[in-house]
Amino acid sequence: MEGKSRPLGLLGSSLNKYVLVKVKWNREYRGKLDGYDQHMNLVIKEAEEIIDNKSNGILPVAVIRGDVVVYISPSEV
Amino acid sequence: MEGKSRPLGLLGSSLNKYVLVKVKWNREYRGKLDGYDQHMNLVIKEAEEIIDNKSNGILPVAVIRGDVVVYISPSEV
Amino acid sequence: MEGKSRPLGLLGSSLNKYVLVKVKWNREYRGKLDGYDQHMNLVIKEAEEIIDNKSNGILPVAVIRGDVVVYISPSEV
Amino acid sequence: MEGKSRPLGLLGSSLNKYVLVKVKWNREYRGKLDGYDQHMNLVIKEAEEIIDNKSNGILPVAVIRGDVVVYISPSEV
Amino acid sequence: MEGKSRPLGLLGSSLNKYVLVKVKWNREYRGKLDGYDQHMNLVIKEAEEIIDNKSNGILPVAVIRGDVVVYISPSEV
Amino acid sequence: MEGKSRPLGLLGSSLNKYVLVKVKWNREYRGKLDGYDQHMNLVIKEAEEIIDNKSNGILPVAVIRGDVVVYISPSEV
Amino acid sequence: MEGKSRPLGLLGSSLNKYVLVKVKWNREYRGKLDGYDQHMNLVIKEAEEIIDNKSNGILPVAVIRGDVVVYISPSEV
Repeated sequence: MEGKSRPLGLLGSSLNKYVLVKVKWNREYRGKLDGYDQHMNLVIKEAEEIIDNKSNGILPVAVIRGDVVVYISPSEV
Repeated sequence: MEGKSRPLGLLGSSLNKYVLVKVKWNREYRGKLDGYDQHMNLVIKEAEEIIDNKSNGILPVAVIRGDVVVYISPSEV
Repeated sequence: MEGKSRPLGLLGSSLNKYVLVKVKWNREYRGKLDGYDQHMNLVIKEAEEIIDNKSNGILPVAVIRGDVVVYISPSEV
Repeated sequence: MEGKSRPLGLLGSSLNKYVLVKVKWNREYRGKLDGYDQHMNLVIKEAEEIIDNKSNGILPVAVIRGDVVVYISPSEV
Repeated sequence: MEGKSRPLGLLGSSLNKYVLVKVKWNREYRGKLDGYDQHMNLVIKEAEEIIDNKSNGILPVAVIRGDVVVYISPSEV
Repeated sequence: MEGKSRPLGLLGSSLNKYVLVKVKWNREYRGKLDGYDQHMNLVIKEAEEIIDNKSNGILPVAVIRGDVVVYISPSEV
Repeated sequence: MEGKSRPLGLLGSSLNKYVLVKVKWNREYRGKLDGYDQHMNLVIKEAEEIIDNKSNGILPVAVIRGDVVVYISPSEV
């Protein structure tokens, strides 16, 4: 009804895969998707923080609030 | 009652078609609509990212949060 | 109780009429109202996009998110 | 309990009266209140748009989203 | 449980008293609290509008949306 | 389950104690916590307003909207 | 279903551990997670406030509103 892949469904099939998480303020996080909830809050492991296209180091794990997310893109479909 | 095409209904009939997704901050995404939900979260395949009218590459697939969307325009009606 | 014309009621009687949709960031859309929902998400056909008072072309159809709308003004009452 | 005049009650007694609607971004609308709902979405008839204290013309009728409203002031109490 | 005076309770005991309503964008309103609701929408009578510390005149009555309020301070406790 | 002290529980045990309330726009309020609700709306007594690190006077009592709060820090734990 | 570690679950397993809380406006707080709720409101003990990468002192305890949080990263996984 709502397309082959619903938004949360795509997150489900991206678990344990590498994702690019674009957030507001020209920031992004790249790492392995380890969990999520219906608000699009995300758990990202080995999350590389990239600010204005420069790496700012790696967080072992981070809970990113869905409210700041612009898009989530898994590297493999 | 609420018009021939309700907003979510138009998204439904745009599945598998190419859409232009205008988001905040002068960004847009062009690609195939592969899914959506009632919050207007979208799944876009082969999504070309365009920032300030310049292409910034193509994402194989992206979940765009409805909260950042300004409008969605399917290329064919 | 809540006036002769409630906000959503006025949208209902504006279906298939031309409307001006003012959104945030000095943008507006002019076209035929083809649908809406209770969040004031709108379906506009033949939507001329006007940015800073200059036409930016016409979208065959667009779903505009209610969240970005400032006001909606039908050209005929 | 919540005062002689509750906010929505004051809107009810202002129907068909002239109101000043102050919205965000230094804009205001002056016209006759023709309807409203519980979200403070408003229907204003013969709405004069005033931007930075200068008149920008009159809209025959406009649905103003409650979300952009700062205050509503009826000219007669 | 939640303190001697809960937020809405303090508004209740401030009815018909003069209050200072600080809103966003360096604006404030001073007048008599005539009503309120659970969203902190307020009815203020004889509301003096103060912008950047300068008086901008008096509104006979105004419904101020709770969403723009920073704080409400009754002049007498 | 959710930690020794849940957020609202900490507010409960801070009643009648002095708190620092940091809000958006580089403002803070220091005073006695006299009440709160589940939206983190707060009642602060003898609230000193501090803007850009300078005191701007004392409000006998103020209802601060939870929506503008960044953090609340009781001076004694 | 929603990943090995759901966002709130990760917070649960981070109780009494040191976390980095990144909030909006280039601010962060580092301290021990002492509690949280479903809105991601957090209780942080011995919270060092860091503004634009400079320490601004330590708060004995602070309730940080979930609404301002960008991400939470426990230092140990």
